[in-house]
Amino acid sequence: MAMMKAAVFVEPGRIELQEKPIPEVGPNDALLRITTTTICGTDVHILKGEYPVARGLTIGHEPVGIIEKLGSNVKGYQEGQRVIAGAICPSFTSYACQDGVPSQDGGCSCHGYKPMGGWRFGNSIDGVQAEYALVPDAQANLAPIPDGLSDEQVLMCPDIMSTGFAGAEAAHIRIGDIVAVFAQGPIGLCATAGARLRGASTIIVVDGVDQRLEVARRMGADVTLNFRNVDVVDEILKLTGGRGVDASIEALGTQTTFEQALRVLKPGGTLSSLGVYSQDLSIPLGAFHAGLGDHKIITSLCPGGKERMRRLLNVVASGRADFGALVTHHYRLDDIVEAYDLFSHQRDGVLKVAIKP
Amino acid sequence: MAMMKAAVFVEPGRIELQEKPIPEVGPNDALLRITTTTICGTDVHILKGEYPVARGLTIGHEPVGIIEKLGSNVKGYQEGQRVIAGAICPSFTSYACQDGVPSQDGGCSCHGYKPMGGWRFGNSIDGVQAEYALVPDAQANLAPIPDGLSDEQVLMCPDIMSTGFAGAEAAHIRIGDIVAVFAQGPIGLCATAGARLRGASTIIVVDGVDQRLEVARRMGADVTLNFRNVDVVDEILKLTGGRGVDASIEALGTQTTFEQALRVLKPGGTLSSLGVYSQDLSIPLGAFHAGLGDHKIITSLCPGGKERMRRLLNVVASGRADFGALVTHHYRLDDIVEAYDLFSHQRDGVLKVAIKP
Amino acid sequence: MAMMKAAVFVEPGRIELQEKPIPEVGPNDALLRITTTTICGTDVHILKGEYPVARGLTIGHEPVGIIEKLGSNVKGYQEGQRVIAGAICPSFTSYACQDGVPSQDGGCSCHGYKPMGGWRFGNSIDGVQAEYALVPDAQANLAPIPDGLSDEQVLMCPDIMSTGFAGAEAAHIRIGDIVAVFAQGPIGLCATAGARLRGASTIIVVDGVDQRLEVARRMGADVTLNFRNVDVVDEILKLTGGRGVDASIEALGTQTTFEQALRVLKPGGTLSSLGVYSQDLSIPLGAFHAGLGDHKIITSLCPGGKERMRRLLNVVASGRADFGALVTHHYRLDDIVEAYDLFSHQRDGVLKVAIKP
Amino acid sequence: MAMMKAAVFVEPGRIELQEKPIPEVGPNDALLRITTTTICGTDVHILKGEYPVARGLTIGHEPVGIIEKLGSNVKGYQEGQRVIAGAICPSFTSYACQDGVPSQDGGCSCHGYKPMGGWRFGNSIDGVQAEYALVPDAQANLAPIPDGLSDEQVLMCPDIMSTGFAGAEAAHIRIGDIVAVFAQGPIGLCATAGARLRGASTIIVVDGVDQRLEVARRMGADVTLNFRNVDVVDEILKLTGGRGVDASIEALGTQTTFEQALRVLKPGGTLSSLGVYSQDLSIPLGAFHAGLGDHKIITSLCPGGKERMRRLLNVVASGRADFGALVTHHYRLDDIVEAYDLFSHQRDGVLKVAIKP
Repeated sequence: MAMMKAAVFVEPGRIELQEKPIPEVGPNDALLRITTTTICGTDVHILKGEYPVARGLTIGHEPVGIIEKLGSNVKGYQEGQRVIAGAICPSFTSYACQDGVPSQDGGCSCHGYKPMGGWRFGNSIDGVQAEYALVPDAQANLAPIPDGLSDEQVLMCPDIMSTGFAGAEAAHIRIGDIVAVFAQGPIGLCATAGARLRGASTIIVVDGVDQRLEVARRMGADVTLNFRNVDVVDEILKLTGGRGVDASIEALGTQTTFEQALRVLKPGGTLSSLGVYSQDLSIPLGAFHAGLGDHKIITSLCPGGKERMRRLLNVVASGRADFGALVTHHYRLDDIVEAYDLFSHQRDGVLKVAIKP
Repeated sequence: MAMMKAAVFVEPGRIELQEKPIPEVGPNDALLRITTTTICGTDVHILKGEYPVARGLTIGHEPVGIIEKLGSNVKGYQEGQRVIAGAICPSFTSYACQDGVPSQDGGCSCHGYKPMGGWRFGNSIDGVQAEYALVPDAQANLAPIPDGLSDEQVLMCPDIMSTGFAGAEAAHIRIGDIVAVFAQGPIGLCATAGARLRGASTIIVVDGVDQRLEVARRMGADVTLNFRNVDVVDEILKLTGGRGVDASIEALGTQTTFEQALRVLKPGGTLSSLGVYSQDLSIPLGAFHAGLGDHKIITSLCPGGKERMRRLLNVVASGRADFGALVTHHYRLDDIVEAYDLFSHQRDGVLKVAIKP
Repeated sequence: MAMMKAAVFVEPGRIELQEKPIPEVGPNDALLRITTTTICGTDVHILKGEYPVARGLTIGHEPVGIIEKLGSNVKGYQEGQRVIAGAICPSFTSYACQDGVPSQDGGCSCHGYKPMGGWRFGNSIDGVQAEYALVPDAQANLAPIPDGLSDEQVLMCPDIMSTGFAGAEAAHIRIGDIVAVFAQGPIGLCATAGARLRGASTIIVVDGVDQRLEVARRMGADVTLNFRNVDVVDEILKLTGGRGVDASIEALGTQTTFEQALRVLKPGGTLSSLGVYSQDLSIPLGAFHAGLGDHKIITSLCPGGKERMRRLLNVVASGRADFGALVTHHYRLDDIVEAYDLFSHQRDGVLKVAIKP
Repeated sequence: MAMMKAAVFVEPGRIELQEKPIPEVGPNDALLRITTTTICGTDVHILKGEYPVARGLTIGHEPVGIIEKLGSNVKGYQEGQRVIAGAICPSFTSYACQDGVPSQDGGCSCHGYKPMGGWRFGNSIDGVQAEYALVPDAQANLAPIPDGLSDEQVLMCPDIMSTGFAGAEAAHIRIGDIVAVFAQGPIGLCATAGARLRGASTIIVVDGVDQRLEVARRMGADVTLNFRNVDVVDEILKLTGGRGVDASIEALGTQTTFEQALRVLKPGGTLSSLGVYSQDLSIPLGAFHAGLGDHKIITSLCPGGKERMRRLLNVVASGRADFGALVTHHYRLDDIVEAYDLFSHQRDGVLKVAIKP
């Protein structure tokens, strides 16, 4: 049995590189030889035991690779082709998918524990921080990489770009809008780029790290606010002449950012929320206009599927946005434990790390 | 100076019928002789001093009447014509109106006190619980009553129908949807009727008063749940096979109803909120899927304008819905203090009272 | 090899009942024992040789049946279960599906010959006018029939209701709209019912057969116009005070109905087209306001998939609409040639025929 | 009576500069001192007698100016303020406006002659190619120019940008879309810029003048096709791998461009039409997929109002797009007859001319 290396969740606090068998390819699957992958904030939650997964599971959900083997039902691809797949790989057969919400495909309807929609890689099936990985429902999920693009250029597509752009899309941005984005980590930066792509003319971004605010300018931000230096709500209301922003995007998952996003929102505006929250949220009565502000609060989970990936790859290929700047560090898969250590402690200005088997 | 009777806010706890001058008609106004009006829950908040308005202000925002005099700029109407006007009478010249949110026309952008959007009648200008009332921006707001309809038949259009239907419209209902409506007061009943008009095939309604649940059946409810008898969240999840409803409508303004509306909502579904809340809301982490449920939470304030009223009048004229059952009591304007007493104490199964000068 | 009877296209002018092998079930398929099916106008085009299909192909695309055997990958269903499947059974893995247009799944992109979107049953694979039929991509397409509904009650779901309702949905109908529907054959009648379900308050329907206009009243029409008796454009403009309708639905596929649908449309309105046209269309300059009328012209092909079917079945189960009246005739599969003869000549007031193996 | 110079339609073939009284300011008006204006293709149609207006009417509908005097009802502006107003100045009180289609405000519902929606300047009231002009419904239409922007920078906002962007907005462009724009005159160039602002990642533009195609690249085009050199339909289908474009925009008003826009459109795609057609259009059966392609054909007329103008001005102020390159020539108002001569003959590579009183 051929073996491979894979980053495995052992127990809270411990992810290890282990030897595992290269998986068997079912009729609807594709086996990828991973060429580059990366670590996500959710993986850190898994590492810390804050988000529970099965012991022994391979972690990671952002694959860039080469088709090693195709299942018998998968048509229109060739072995050796460079592809990506979304962090969420929907079957597209479920009620949720047919209802226009593929990110919730196969998600539990238990209204309780582990509300992670249709996320499978590194959650309910083995992930992609490994030498090889199986893509389920490959016909619906394999997206060929356009010629001339490097792994690093497309590494953000499976999760970070898809999620960040979803935040901008859900914000109902129109040409000429004023948009505020709260938090400029990788997803917030992509939300900023997405807001620009949708036609926002003034993008105000908020973070506490000046280096991130500088990257934000390259992603399309017009105004950067460091919350350590200014009262961001006051400042944004001042910048908009007291009118509030047309849309605000929350990209962290805290009470503070959510609340600020609401306080700066004009009546009739949209609050697009991307963060993963870890406690009950409070909606302040005044900011909510007692329920009479014609507000929209919309949450989005990372859209997947080959059509979504095709669009994101188009954006990269056409040079509309460049996310190269987000890859701040490189590691070999052999050194992934070290990469987790750097990333989980947010040392050295890390935004995203590229990991190569 | 010709005088008229008007219901006036005197001080917290006291609304009185007083003599006031019949107002002067400006070039963009119309003077209505009120033939029927009614009392709204908001008026009761004013009476109790919970919502502050100027002392001496005429109260009321739901006019049915006859054009007594037209301003010089108002074209296309005739004196003597029977008309209604919306509870909110937008100018339609503001940024908010041109932005597609006319209910917020002229609303403060202070993000604070009195967040009542563009509401003017009985709030920032004299209201309609009087023998005569001025309609501002009359060109945009006068809506002729189709022949053959009684005052009572159209009395719900200015506020109750417009708000309740807005809740159904904002819920993004599609043909065949399962919808839950929480609270079946007048606005909740109209939301139920609205959900039916949008094509919901299963409408589950919740209230604590059996009589209201009976009226709800006539408005289009398929399943009625009395929260005094069942755990409504459990029951609705059971009714939907654990899947949750496609959309839920909140029509009361409390933590309990808001939270229930979220707990029964499927991933990807819409919570449409109509209630006026009186305290900060809490969003439970689990019900919110930690922000990953692709949920939409949308609040709506009563849409106004003659085009909105025209559509609502069409619904009544075509017999698509009959809100006659909502008028449970009749009073003369002279007895309006008595009407307030009945309505504010919700005695005698009152839903709405018709008041005639 | 077990054999079954099937209606087969032999040559232009000839459809015959033949013996064929019961098909083998692949891993993603389901084999249905057909209990009821029907004939569509498209089948008549096939019979006449106007729409070409392979000789020997089993015809028909509207299945009601019982699961005889499930493919190995199909989960969550049981053999013996009563189900339907849409006339178009998308795989939901294609770019078109993921793009929100599943009816075009697998459709050619040749921009030329046989532009029938993703239609497979009785077009590119064997159809359902047979004792048994294979449902492809069964996981995405099998829709259980709610308890208590007869075959006849759900027989319109796979095509007629789905298409007719799609016409109403694409028309962007809002509560209180005035809608005109041109032609009241089975699809036009379902468009009328759909317009009512979306909240249209005045529905004006046009046909040349009084009996169909009578059925239209039962489906929700408020005004019926026989084009043999009145100038329908003049009449509709008169009925709307010269303003035009908010939306018009074309349900036949001729220059005349398309043009009338445009001539009665208000500036800013939507023309929703369902007809299958057989020649180039002409858009008259005046009716089109020279391209300045803010008009929308939208075509729709029958949506499929189990979620779509679930919604339509909900509509039937809740009694929101009753399409029983559309089944005017019953035949045994053995007599299907006779049924084609009746249906293709539109004799005896036929709307739809139920055919039972 | 104070007098001013104005460009007046005298008779077909003759527009002259004449002396006229400076208009009186009504309560809802504003008087602008025009500082810059321009000539539109529609003005040329008027000059040639192809589009009839009253003799003696002042022509022109693209004003940049300074508030000279405000009507008594107009609040929130000051005399001396630099402003623009849209080519279409809706009252926002009409049914059409309240229905979400303000460009059709006050438009005739005659379904016949002069279908120009709500266009007033230089059509039904005196226009702006003059030293002074009245803005009707000024409260809804005056848009202050942000500090630091020149007249030339904002001169495209009233008509060209608003129309061109409307074409992109109506095309339902999503991030990563492939979009084709047919004709690259001023409006087509703005449609190209608009498509880029909405997130299209590949924009293919078509024209017959190389110089315009060069300007198109500066506006955001990725691929330029000169229809004199290539078969544009073949080329675009080749560029999209036979799939067709996600959206196409027609910006000329001819059978050829309309038909090409349809022939390159994918099933499920949107054809957004901006052109003013001068004869009946033909829709070829094959390109239309016989009505089964899930196509959308949408026409748009120039949106107006101060909110629209505010957004467009934001786009210019933020440097998101620069339309300076479109102003190829400058004239004094005194020389406007000469400017008409140049513009109407499309000499000297003219795109737009700036005209200054």
